[in-house]
Amino acid sequence: MVRKGLLIVVSGPSGAGKGTICKRLLENNPQMKISISATTRKPRAGERNAVNYYFISEDKFKRMIYEQKFLEYAIVYDNYYGTPEQYVIDNLQNGNDVLLEIDIVGALQIKKKFKDAVFVFILPPSLEELKNRIVGRGTEKLSDIEKRYDAAISEIKQVMKYDYVIVNDNVSEAVQDIEAIMRAEKRKVLRNYEEILLRF
Amino acid sequence: MVRKGLLIVVSGPSGAGKGTICKRLLENNPQMKISISATTRKPRAGERNAVNYYFISEDKFKRMIYEQKFLEYAIVYDNYYGTPEQYVIDNLQNGNDVLLEIDIVGALQIKKKFKDAVFVFILPPSLEELKNRIVGRGTEKLSDIEKRYDAAISEIKQVMKYDYVIVNDNVSEAVQDIEAIMRAEKRKVLRNYEEILLRF
Repeated sequence: MVRKGLLIVVSGPSGAGKGTICKRLLENNPQMKISISATTRKPRAGERNAVNYYFISEDKFKRMIYEQKFLEYAIVYDNYYGTPEQYVIDNLQNGNDVLLEIDIVGALQIKKKFKDAVFVFILPPSLEELKNRIVGRGTEKLSDIEKRYDAAISEIKQVMKYDYVIVNDNVSEAVQDIEAIMRAEKRKVLRNYEEILLRF
Repeated sequence: MVRKGLLIVVSGPSGAGKGTICKRLLENNPQMKISISATTRKPRAGERNAVNYYFISEDKFKRMIYEQKFLEYAIVYDNYYGTPEQYVIDNLQNGNDVLLEIDIVGALQIKKKFKDAVFVFILPPSLEELKNRIVGRGTEKLSDIEKRYDAAISEIKQVMKYDYVIVNDNVSEAVQDIEAIMRAEKRKVLRNYEEILLRF
C-alpha cells in the first residue's frame, strides 16, 4: 500500500553505538539507502571518503550552503556536518527507504522539514558504559572526550523530541527494533489514507 | 524497559478476516492474553463458551452493565456484546500484552478509556472479496448479510480514528505486521520516558 519511501532518522549521543546499529541494519536490508553526510572534519583511522562521509573542504562546504544544497547542516566541535538534499529526496520519491544517521542538532532540523520522517534515539546501556565507549574509541584528545561526555548528557535530555527510543544493550535486538519500527510505520493510517480511499 | 503490558485493539468490518488473524497471532505469541467478550447472541456452529465468547443471558448481561463490570459494551444487530473489565486491567498491570478483538463501536469506547492502547484496523483485500466472505460464512440470513455488507462499507470510513491499518491480503503478513506494531509501540518515547529518567 505504500509508495513513498520512509525517511528514518537515527541519532543519539556520541558513544551510544548508533554507527554499529546502522551498519548492521543496512547489511540486513540491502534495499535501504543510506544518506552519506558531508563534513569538513578530518577522517578518523579507517574512514573512507564517500563511504563514511564526503570529506570536503570548508570552502566547498560553504559554497554548498550558499547554493542551498543541504537538507540540514550544523557546526559540531568546530567542524561542519551536512546532509546533501538531492539524494534523500530522489530516493524517497522513488519509493526507497532512506536511513539518516545524524547528530541531534541535525535531526531536529530534519524534523522541521520532514513531518513524516521517523525519529529514533539510541541510548547507551548506561552512563558508565557511555564513558567507557567514548574513552575506548581512542581517537580523541582528553579535552574532546570530556566535551563529548558532557554533550552526551545534555543530548539525552532531547529524547522527548523523538518518536522512538532504543537502549543499545544488544545490537541485534536494536536492529530488529528498527526493522519493526519501519514495518509498523508503513502501516500507520496517516501514511495510507489516500490509498484506502482509492481502494474502498 | 517496558513494565506495563500493551493493550492492542484489533477491529474492522465483518468479513475482513480479523478473527483468523487474531487466532494466528495468539498461536505465535502464547504469552499474549486474549480478552474474551461476553455476548447475548446465540453461538454459531463450532463456537464454544469461554473460548469464542462468554455466551450469557440478557438478564445477566444487564446485571453486569448495572454493576459496571464492562470496559465497553454495545448492541449490534439486536445482540449485546461487552468486554469484561477486570481481566484486561489485571493483565496489563502484570505486564502482559492483551489482545482485544472487537467491533468498531466497542473499539471507539475503549479509545476513550485507554489513551495508550494501540488501535489496528483490518481491511479486506477489496469490496468484492468482503462480499464473498460475508456470503461464504453461510451462517446468516440474507437480510443479515445485506445489513453486514452495508455496515461494513460505513465502518471502513472509521479507519481514520485508528492508529494502524492492515489490508488482509495475506494472513501471515498481517500477523507479522501486528507483531512489528507491538514491538515498535514498546519503543515509543512516550511509553519509556519515566524509565529513561530513572536510568540517565
